[in-house]
Amino acid sequence: MKQTVINAIRILSADTIERAKSGHPGLPLGSAPIGYALFQDFLKFNPKDPKWDDRDRFVLSAGHGSALLYTLLHLYGFSVSIDDLKHFRKLGSKTPGHPEYGHTEGVETTTGPLGQGVANAVGMAMAEAHLAARFNREGYPVVDHFTYCLCGDGCLEEGISYEACSFAGAHGLGKLILLYDDNEITIEGNTSVTFRDDVAKRFEAQNWQVIKVDLVSKPDNVLLITNAIRKAQRETKRPSVIVFKTHIGYGSPLENSPKCHGSPLGEENLAATRKKFGWEYPPFTIPEEVYSHTRKAARRGARRERDWKTMLSEYTKKYPDLAAEYLKAMTGELPEFDLEDLLTFEKPLSTRQASSVVLNKIARELPTLMGGSADLAPSTLTEMKEIETFGVFSPENYAGRNVHFGIREHAMAAISNGLCLHGGIRPYCATFFVFSDYCKHAMRLSALMKIPVIYVLTHDSIGVGEDGPTHEPVEQLVGLRAIPDMQIFRPADGKETAAAWLYALKGQAPTALVLSRQTLPNYAGSGLGALKGGYVLEDCEGTPDVLLIASGSEVEPCVAAKRLLEGENIKARVVSMPCMEAFERQPDAYRESVIPASVKARVCVEAGSPYSWYKYAGEKGEIVAMNSFGASGPAPELFVRFGFTAQNVAEKAKKSLNETRV
Amino acid sequence: MKQTVINAIRILSADTIERAKSGHPGLPLGSAPIGYALFQDFLKFNPKDPKWDDRDRFVLSAGHGSALLYTLLHLYGFSVSIDDLKHFRKLGSKTPGHPEYGHTEGVETTTGPLGQGVANAVGMAMAEAHLAARFNREGYPVVDHFTYCLCGDGCLEEGISYEACSFAGAHGLGKLILLYDDNEITIEGNTSVTFRDDVAKRFEAQNWQVIKVDLVSKPDNVLLITNAIRKAQRETKRPSVIVFKTHIGYGSPLENSPKCHGSPLGEENLAATRKKFGWEYPPFTIPEEVYSHTRKAARRGARRERDWKTMLSEYTKKYPDLAAEYLKAMTGELPEFDLEDLLTFEKPLSTRQASSVVLNKIARELPTLMGGSADLAPSTLTEMKEIETFGVFSPENYAGRNVHFGIREHAMAAISNGLCLHGGIRPYCATFFVFSDYCKHAMRLSALMKIPVIYVLTHDSIGVGEDGPTHEPVEQLVGLRAIPDMQIFRPADGKETAAAWLYALKGQAPTALVLSRQTLPNYAGSGLGALKGGYVLEDCEGTPDVLLIASGSEVEPCVAAKRLLEGENIKARVVSMPCMEAFERQPDAYRESVIPASVKARVCVEAGSPYSWYKYAGEKGEIVAMNSFGASGPAPELFVRFGFTAQNVAEKAKKSLNETRV
Repeated sequence: MKQTVINAIRILSADTIERAKSGHPGLPLGSAPIGYALFQDFLKFNPKDPKWDDRDRFVLSAGHGSALLYTLLHLYGFSVSIDDLKHFRKLGSKTPGHPEYGHTEGVETTTGPLGQGVANAVGMAMAEAHLAARFNREGYPVVDHFTYCLCGDGCLEEGISYEACSFAGAHGLGKLILLYDDNEITIEGNTSVTFRDDVAKRFEAQNWQVIKVDLVSKPDNVLLITNAIRKAQRETKRPSVIVFKTHIGYGSPLENSPKCHGSPLGEENLAATRKKFGWEYPPFTIPEEVYSHTRKAARRGARRERDWKTMLSEYTKKYPDLAAEYLKAMTGELPEFDLEDLLTFEKPLSTRQASSVVLNKIARELPTLMGGSADLAPSTLTEMKEIETFGVFSPENYAGRNVHFGIREHAMAAISNGLCLHGGIRPYCATFFVFSDYCKHAMRLSALMKIPVIYVLTHDSIGVGEDGPTHEPVEQLVGLRAIPDMQIFRPADGKETAAAWLYALKGQAPTALVLSRQTLPNYAGSGLGALKGGYVLEDCEGTPDVLLIASGSEVEPCVAAKRLLEGENIKARVVSMPCMEAFERQPDAYRESVIPASVKARVCVEAGSPYSWYKYAGEKGEIVAMNSFGASGPAPELFVRFGFTAQNVAEKAKKSLNETRV
Repeated sequence: MKQTVINAIRILSADTIERAKSGHPGLPLGSAPIGYALFQDFLKFNPKDPKWDDRDRFVLSAGHGSALLYTLLHLYGFSVSIDDLKHFRKLGSKTPGHPEYGHTEGVETTTGPLGQGVANAVGMAMAEAHLAARFNREGYPVVDHFTYCLCGDGCLEEGISYEACSFAGAHGLGKLILLYDDNEITIEGNTSVTFRDDVAKRFEAQNWQVIKVDLVSKPDNVLLITNAIRKAQRETKRPSVIVFKTHIGYGSPLENSPKCHGSPLGEENLAATRKKFGWEYPPFTIPEEVYSHTRKAARRGARRERDWKTMLSEYTKKYPDLAAEYLKAMTGELPEFDLEDLLTFEKPLSTRQASSVVLNKIARELPTLMGGSADLAPSTLTEMKEIETFGVFSPENYAGRNVHFGIREHAMAAISNGLCLHGGIRPYCATFFVFSDYCKHAMRLSALMKIPVIYVLTHDSIGVGEDGPTHEPVEQLVGLRAIPDMQIFRPADGKETAAAWLYALKGQAPTALVLSRQTLPNYAGSGLGALKGGYVLEDCEGTPDVLLIASGSEVEPCVAAKRLLEGENIKARVVSMPCMEAFERQPDAYRESVIPASVKARVCVEAGSPYSWYKYAGEKGEIVAMNSFGASGPAPELFVRFGFTAQNVAEKAKKSLNETRV
């Protein structure tokens, strides 16, 4: 029967792709026995409750092999029907080209961009280790599951996977099991044309257990696979990688050729493949015996969930506080924050300092808050300081909440995605704003998945100063704002920074907190108004002649320019715009009350690319922004050199006023 | 004397940082003997001719250690004076916070963002191997130099370095020598908190020679260093890494502490450091004996350049054609292209196909053109097809011009930077547009350095279709446009694609060619007008009622909408805007002739973020753009779903017209 199910996986995947006239059959044909062994004999899942907290996580990092995943989900009882498979890659179907989190039951994360899934899996295994350390008590392993990840050469060639696996090895994540489909073929040919790494040795160098399985000479030997997975499970101090030597496109005439990677096999080849496996059923027809075999695994999973629930209810009796804490963590419930306390700042701070104050207050109230920086904590100020309480996440203390992500921005962001996807944790991660470039794609995936990862990005402009243009962001603000569903919050002072954190915590999508290196004033008018994204920070009497609109540190020259303009009897309103995305969601009337259409004289000021501001400046407005890279020098001199001064803003205001009078 | 020079390097670096009140003394103190040994005994350079083609390249990948580099450049006779050191990190000085290419003589690349320099060095070593294979003849090693790169833990933790070193190992770049300052300290503490890799083993797994040097027990033993470098030089089939165990901040009271990484030592600690090394000179005073010692190295370099020139002139006599070819390559001279031929397309193609045609025509005329893709050549269509002529770059054929970069986008871009910086090569590299995210920061550095790397980015929108939102770029267009000095060219048809390539080749800055997956029409009105960035593709009689402005594939619905509008007696002009950066550089009169200020009714159409378009739409204009992520489905259905149809554009044109009448 095993062989029949494996063949069913292969042919159903290939038929799915064939019908869509689009897809990647190579991986499903080669990896079918791995998928089979995992789902049939190991994976802890209940298709009737696909979100069961203690399920094993399975990540298909090689997301182009989505047909394999959808086929497995179908055969093992998840809500993916034959009809869904027939609509593979069709608009609005449950089976999009790459697996999409939140779209298809049983899909744990959105994959496709290579290497991301490996890092997500590291985050999930990390979450498991952390929650187990916090909540498990003797005899009550409330959190106790494996994280499996299937990847190919592509994932391992990507630097992000090196970073993530280095992190996993250093932190001894023993319940992480990487299934490496080593078929030696990528799109441009044999991997040897450019990838000659000894991958086993690489993983050994990273403190992983390496297990080798030869499926080339014995392609469908399930015993080899199950033995390997058992061995991986037994190693608890190190993550394990199982190197499966496979044939890409196994059983098809295109076997071992890049040609079977990214296109349907074609009618003739598919027929030959059917023949090779002796598969006599028409497309999308699976014999009942296959389902009755796979149902055993689903039933086992349902049983395990029942047992787990029994244990949980005993645990709840024995440890009621802990159980309540666990439930709160898993549902993501937020505490009531002391807003007055959060919004109190005695003296002007940089917004990174203000963020540190807020973060530490929140950390006390929100035990699920966990995070850290890419080796910049003393600069990003993202440490939760009561180390004796909060701890450092390490092999010696998985309960620790401060994370040393290492100089690995890309993996950091993708690991944070994994932490968030797992549940039970509110992750944040931090680096210099300019290095958000390094993690850009993982941030995009946070947004695509609409998961509320918090990015703390400090040193947000030429305010960086002496470190110079390599460290001074210019284009990053609009670059992130342009990502759908990403929220960018660039506060002007401490109170706006507190609002930014609240906004990020309450959001249902990722938020980037973009923070200054340098000290900024405290404004009397700032506060929770910032939650609306844009608001009147300082107003004039009556209708303003000119609007001065800015975010973050550039609110300061606007406020000062307002005074200068007052001296010339020009009435200016200062609008603080920390979060354009929030402002754009306000009702028209509110937005009109802040930025009246009738006031055409405007100056928009931000030490970033002007692209962000054309929509608010309008045709008569002026934009004071960065039209070039920054420079190395003391920050105050840079702000003068690039025109972020009260004088220049006031000049531009008068210029805009003149324009409106033409 | 050695010890005196090493101490001079240390103290001068520390004084430089102290005076700037900003900088990173840890690396210079620890690595001074490495820098000394390299410059004194090995590096082939002539400070009087710092751009000598056959000099050794030295990359300080750990760019925060810039004081070390500036000090070495000063002591070894480059145009960096004591006064320049005194102005370290001051606005407008020759000595910015991180080394900047094109700004300071002897700085081979801009570094600071970690890992980039390692990949740049791989590109330089690759360029050397390629040019040597093309130009060297027996007895005439016209191209024959080493590439050295000094890096720290930060560089090696970054995934980009893993990718780059994997590439270097697979390609056996034997003249690349990586000097790894292994001081076990990063900003957050000991590397063991998160980086426990066996780095030596990692490099062995990547086919590198690994040499270990213990400078911890013998910090200033120059002989150990020179022996190691000699051993590295002797290995010609594999790159070498020398793992130098060092003390960060050696000799200062902050030795072995993260505290000496990123801040000046402070007066007291600096005084103690002076004492430790018995350095009795005041700040910025270097005894003459030090200069007379270092001048030996400079003189040796000058002699080597003279010898090389003698050889080159003999070579020129013996191989006049080859020598002419060599000079043309090194000066970057372009051939005269047959424009008529380049602009001829018989049938409509996707712009990626058109690009393939153009690339292959150019490749025949421009022997310095070298490049490839991150394992997507069959999709990006970036192969130079006459393989027998152009070859594949490999250990067996370094003369090959087609490069298999592997699934390593970040390293690919940074290696391309290195190829370009070396000289003698016009590099291009390719991937799907959405994965430009993975190489974003290296692209930023191309722009910051103003080097003309060509990025070929295909599959540029929801036109990707079935692969879905993970593979459909939305925010990338404005994200790249917002990078200062980056040129984005998104052609609408074959002729514009030819113009795009010409533009990229003639530019003095990087250009991204953003190309469609799907077939696009050939327009009668397209052509070299595209070089102006924006131009009238199809006009109406007299003054237009409405302007339809678009780039790339969205020109098509605009042209069709124009017809629809004609049917309703509305006069529309279609403006093709393949390159905003070029358009913005045109004279006012030209821009006004294309987009007259008086025509307020406008529709801007692009299947990317609307942020790019507010400046052209104006207050009455409409923008048809992507306000969300894409979806998985057949591309034509996606264009309909997201509003990129003639009908919708025509509707929006009428809406905008109505607006202008209010």
